[in-house]
Amino acid sequence: MSNPSRTTRSTGQRGWPSLASFGARLTESFARYGQLCVGIDPHSWLLAEWGLPDTAGGAREFGMRVVEASANTVGIIKPQVAFFERFGSAGYHALEDVFQAARATGLLIIADAKRGDVGSSVEAYGHAWLTPGHPLEADALTVSAFQGFGSLDAPARWAEENGKGLFVLAATSNPEAAVIQQAKTASGKSVAASIAAEVTDWNREQSADALGSIGLVLGATINADDYGLNLDTLTHTPILAPGFGHQGARIDQMAELFGPAASSVLISASRSILSAGPYGIADAVSRHAAEVKACRA
Amino acid sequence: MSNPSRTTRSTGQRGWPSLASFGARLTESFARYGQLCVGIDPHSWLLAEWGLPDTAGGAREFGMRVVEASANTVGIIKPQVAFFERFGSAGYHALEDVFQAARATGLLIIADAKRGDVGSSVEAYGHAWLTPGHPLEADALTVSAFQGFGSLDAPARWAEENGKGLFVLAATSNPEAAVIQQAKTASGKSVAASIAAEVTDWNREQSADALGSIGLVLGATINADDYGLNLDTLTHTPILAPGFGHQGARIDQMAELFGPAASSVLISASRSILSAGPYGIADAVSRHAAEVKACRA
Repeated sequence: MSNPSRTTRSTGQRGWPSLASFGARLTESFARYGQLCVGIDPHSWLLAEWGLPDTAGGAREFGMRVVEASANTVGIIKPQVAFFERFGSAGYHALEDVFQAARATGLLIIADAKRGDVGSSVEAYGHAWLTPGHPLEADALTVSAFQGFGSLDAPARWAEENGKGLFVLAATSNPEAAVIQQAKTASGKSVAASIAAEVTDWNREQSADALGSIGLVLGATINADDYGLNLDTLTHTPILAPGFGHQGARIDQMAELFGPAASSVLISASRSILSAGPYGIADAVSRHAAEVKACRA
Repeated sequence: MSNPSRTTRSTGQRGWPSLASFGARLTESFARYGQLCVGIDPHSWLLAEWGLPDTAGGAREFGMRVVEASANTVGIIKPQVAFFERFGSAGYHALEDVFQAARATGLLIIADAKRGDVGSSVEAYGHAWLTPGHPLEADALTVSAFQGFGSLDAPARWAEENGKGLFVLAATSNPEAAVIQQAKTASGKSVAASIAAEVTDWNREQSADALGSIGLVLGATINADDYGLNLDTLTHTPILAPGFGHQGARIDQMAELFGPAASSVLISASRSILSAGPYGIADAVSRHAAEVKACRA
């Protein structure tokens, strides 16, 4: 990303001196609640298991119950936007209600929407998800850099100016992703490593006392060496790591999997918690949170 | 994509023998109206120029007027979803109204949402946008293969089983995209060329009389050689080509830019048409459509 944008960003931060950065808020949340992030994925089959209708109303109720079970036990939730979008505008209305409830409890919200585009379009996505007071206001948004890391310049600046964050897809946990994410750029780095380098560069100017506000998505089941990813460089970068629980990685392997970067990992678990059902969810969240805290200690 | 999916897809097509494929409908639309695709991009500044409020209602009105100006003059519209999403659920409600109006006139709708994810999440996106009778029903959806071409298997199958299409981002018109889209995969092909190869392979089993239903997004301003893209292989693949008009490519250069693949290109124009304003839009659409038809003759 270019120097002019950095200048704008710094000015923005100076413009709102009282606004804590997303990275600072995440650091505080880790200290208080640990590193667990609870997914909110209202699949058809999960709604059925929970005895809820496969409708926007069912997805809303599902989300509300996960928020209730998570508040004051964990610090972060991650609603999967696709499972709300499948109900169109009614699904978005449900998602807005879930966001509002989550914000009221102080949970940090990561909107897992994997948005990406160029120019004013990707800027519009940033405005949708990262604007204080917007009905879709989240604390951070997952994004895709397929159209170049530079294409994310506008939402990254917007995020920082508003105390928000991004998580940029880099090395995801699904095996079919390797073809593209391990492809070699002109510099010789893999696509994933080149995205990681851009993200760490972006975070470099931020406070050394807290995590940066622009993070990465790295699947917990990937081998960092296959992507030429140097985990030593990611100690300051939030890492959203799906793949724990149902997808195969164990929470007690966290230190082994992420080494020097383990303290910046958001351990994202969805199915292994959500499959506990509406009456077991609070207990499942507590058990997972305790397991995460035990590993950290 | 795997052989089992192909089998499912073929069975699906046989299961709905009366359902015309997206490729067949696109071929028919080209013959009738030509290859112009009109963007619907309700930017803040365009809404202001049109004398409309920067609200979901303004975006709805904007979309309705573009639909009205396009119906019976062109065959295809492409709403940019980001500019509706910025208004949250209210924006989606507006988009649903615009889609409904467009469907009623027989326009083909390409939802420019650039969705991508894995597993049941990307499947949910397919269901949201490509299900007959859904409030967000479009005819095709733009998607990103950043998580691997195989990650798009579920929406591609869903599309074909429902007479719908996909446009997979390959080589986009913004310069910062080249780093990733020209990166070399293990096979030696660029990321863009490897996506193009997967798409043409996917379309291979379809009717030779019509375009395939899975298309590519190739910016009109790119140089195919820089990506190792062989345009000779894309005569059967729909190519959504932004970059005409405001972004620099001229409509009369179409044959020169796309050579043997020119007859499968959707010439996408947004700003150059939309900036004509609410009273000039019908005329601007007609002029562009005539210019496109003249090039084809």
